[in-house]
Amino acid sequence: MSVTYAQGFSAAGVRAGISAMSGKKDLAVVVNNGPLQVGAGVFTPNRFCAAPVQWSRKAVEDGKLHAVVLNSGGANACTGLAGYEQSRTSAAHTAQELDCAISDVAICSTGLIGELLPLDKVLQGISAAVQQLGSDEQAGSDASYAIMTTDTKPKTVALDGSGYRIGGMVKGSGMIAPQLATMLCVITTDAVVDEQLAQEALQAGTEVSFNRIDVDGCMSTNDTVLLLASGASGVSADPQEFKQLVAQACASLARQIIGDGEGASHDVRITVTHASDEQAALACARAVAASNLLKCAIAGNDPNWGRVVSSLGTVPAAVAPYNPNEVTVDINGVRVCDGGKPGRDRSEVDMTPREVHIDIDIHAGDAQATVWTDDLTHEYVHINADYES
Amino acid sequence: MSVTYAQGFSAAGVRAGISAMSGKKDLAVVVNNGPLQVGAGVFTPNRFCAAPVQWSRKAVEDGKLHAVVLNSGGANACTGLAGYEQSRTSAAHTAQELDCAISDVAICSTGLIGELLPLDKVLQGISAAVQQLGSDEQAGSDASYAIMTTDTKPKTVALDGSGYRIGGMVKGSGMIAPQLATMLCVITTDAVVDEQLAQEALQAGTEVSFNRIDVDGCMSTNDTVLLLASGASGVSADPQEFKQLVAQACASLARQIIGDGEGASHDVRITVTHASDEQAALACARAVAASNLLKCAIAGNDPNWGRVVSSLGTVPAAVAPYNPNEVTVDINGVRVCDGGKPGRDRSEVDMTPREVHIDIDIHAGDAQATVWTDDLTHEYVHINADYES
Repeated sequence: MSVTYAQGFSAAGVRAGISAMSGKKDLAVVVNNGPLQVGAGVFTPNRFCAAPVQWSRKAVEDGKLHAVVLNSGGANACTGLAGYEQSRTSAAHTAQELDCAISDVAICSTGLIGELLPLDKVLQGISAAVQQLGSDEQAGSDASYAIMTTDTKPKTVALDGSGYRIGGMVKGSGMIAPQLATMLCVITTDAVVDEQLAQEALQAGTEVSFNRIDVDGCMSTNDTVLLLASGASGVSADPQEFKQLVAQACASLARQIIGDGEGASHDVRITVTHASDEQAALACARAVAASNLLKCAIAGNDPNWGRVVSSLGTVPAAVAPYNPNEVTVDINGVRVCDGGKPGRDRSEVDMTPREVHIDIDIHAGDAQATVWTDDLTHEYVHINADYES
Repeated sequence: MSVTYAQGFSAAGVRAGISAMSGKKDLAVVVNNGPLQVGAGVFTPNRFCAAPVQWSRKAVEDGKLHAVVLNSGGANACTGLAGYEQSRTSAAHTAQELDCAISDVAICSTGLIGELLPLDKVLQGISAAVQQLGSDEQAGSDASYAIMTTDTKPKTVALDGSGYRIGGMVKGSGMIAPQLATMLCVITTDAVVDEQLAQEALQAGTEVSFNRIDVDGCMSTNDTVLLLASGASGVSADPQEFKQLVAQACASLARQIIGDGEGASHDVRITVTHASDEQAALACARAVAASNLLKCAIAGNDPNWGRVVSSLGTVPAAVAPYNPNEVTVDINGVRVCDGGKPGRDRSEVDMTPREVHIDIDIHAGDAQATVWTDDLTHEYVHINADYES
């Protein structure tokens, strides 16, 4: 159902001719028809953030957004002032088409870094998309297809609150590291919420979802997560329920990214328990999730716990205190490492399921954290080495 | 010429039957015949360091070593007290064979983590090796073959100082990350040096060599670098020359590791210049060296500078101040990124040489640093996913 599941939103996805993949829809527009036009955003911390990120960060500063334009086929990153001017011109053109303020239009781009967009095609695509705007399921679906790059399937969410709805879409498959690992995401709601609640809910939601997945350890220049609230349900959301639902929407979309990680044959859930605090648990889980050797072993269906603990051992004691001789590692429910030593035989572990669960108990406190990653396969290398540049 | 290039050393490499690779030499012994028996060591900072690392760290504490035993075919890591007892027993057996103190024998192991060694075979192998000790080129060569695992070739060095010699051998191909990225290394010298100079020279040498290479971002549990000085030349080394030569030996061996990185088709030199200080330059170079996406692009012969700057952009400003709009990136001498924007066309870059040079100027000071890495190929995944576990 995507972004049109919530009332008050229309969307479209069109073929603008930006993407090198012939015939692919490559430009989406999402419009908030109100009555509210609340907007919130979270962006990549990358210092080489793309022109559209620089533009959209300013656009959402006042807590207000009317529309979002998203394109695949080009990231418009590291393109200097000319790139920024392209984002500004795209926003201006959209504002004119929709009769709104230019500062209420966010721009999102994804694709190759270091090249300007074919601006004429982008502007024509915006006009075409505005003509085709719809509020039905198909319109939302078209938008979710238009933002795909190496994604093999669209990723959407639809949730029900008490009298209001939340919808959303995301794209992302590679260049996914746990600092806003998302590429592009738009979440919509018809709840009545103010700017502050929207921003708080989005920030908290991304923290335990997009900030806890890692496909390949590479942070993108274009990551953008936007939340638009129309208020069209007329129902004021209970703040706690709303935050919980936004977090649930983020978690669902983040999980779908891992499920569609470039070349992945396993989705890997790494949970660290009994840490001294959440940051310690997170540091441990992230270190394990970043291990190329472990990710290769999982691709080969080997529950190689030596590659789990050797990664765990790289986390400084000051960050995560624990005694290596007390650590246990369970892979798919089998305790293969017990007290820092071999436990049950690795041959007992069934590695055939798509999901692999690595549960690490460091016996140092009461906190825990979970990070999701993918395995590292021949197909990942193929996608990222053997492409046409 | 390996470890026997320096006078006063004998060595051997034998088939002990530890390694699963049939017929492979898998156990080496290096003996310092004096008159001096100075020893220095640098070890992995991994908190799950292996039993032989725990043993050898203590053995070298007093600045004295008589012999080193090294085996491939098993890491004896994460094996608890039983594993430590295996290292101690191996040292005791060696001490008995050589009539020296048990605390003057260092033990090094490499192979699969999480399994005990076949101790009987290790002890028999030590006895056999001691019988075969020789000081000629063949003996040094045998030792350098015996420590190989996924290495495709032995890695050795031979250097001449003013009246003294330095020899050495290293093994390492995967699980190589820039915190003592070396696996196992023994450097020998017949110079007259004291314990303090030996330790200082080794520490300084590893800092700019093994600590600046990265095959796959994975830190080992067994990394050990030892320096043995026999004094057999009778020549007191000039401290400055000695330090410089030890650094040169480390650099040569580290470079050979990169040249034999698992599955690598390119050796990649990343130099960051005009940083505010050396740590800033190093942080930038390491971030770029760790990018799976860049390493895949290089495997595909694509000078994808977007993947250089997107990695550079993950280094916090507090660590390495720079202005993204002033950064330039040259790949094999072609300035593909100029002032954070596209420079000359990527098609001008010749990616066919084995060595790829990425030169990044961040225009923020006078410091610089170089890190070496490998590309990420299908063969790397094959080696680390499709093995017999």
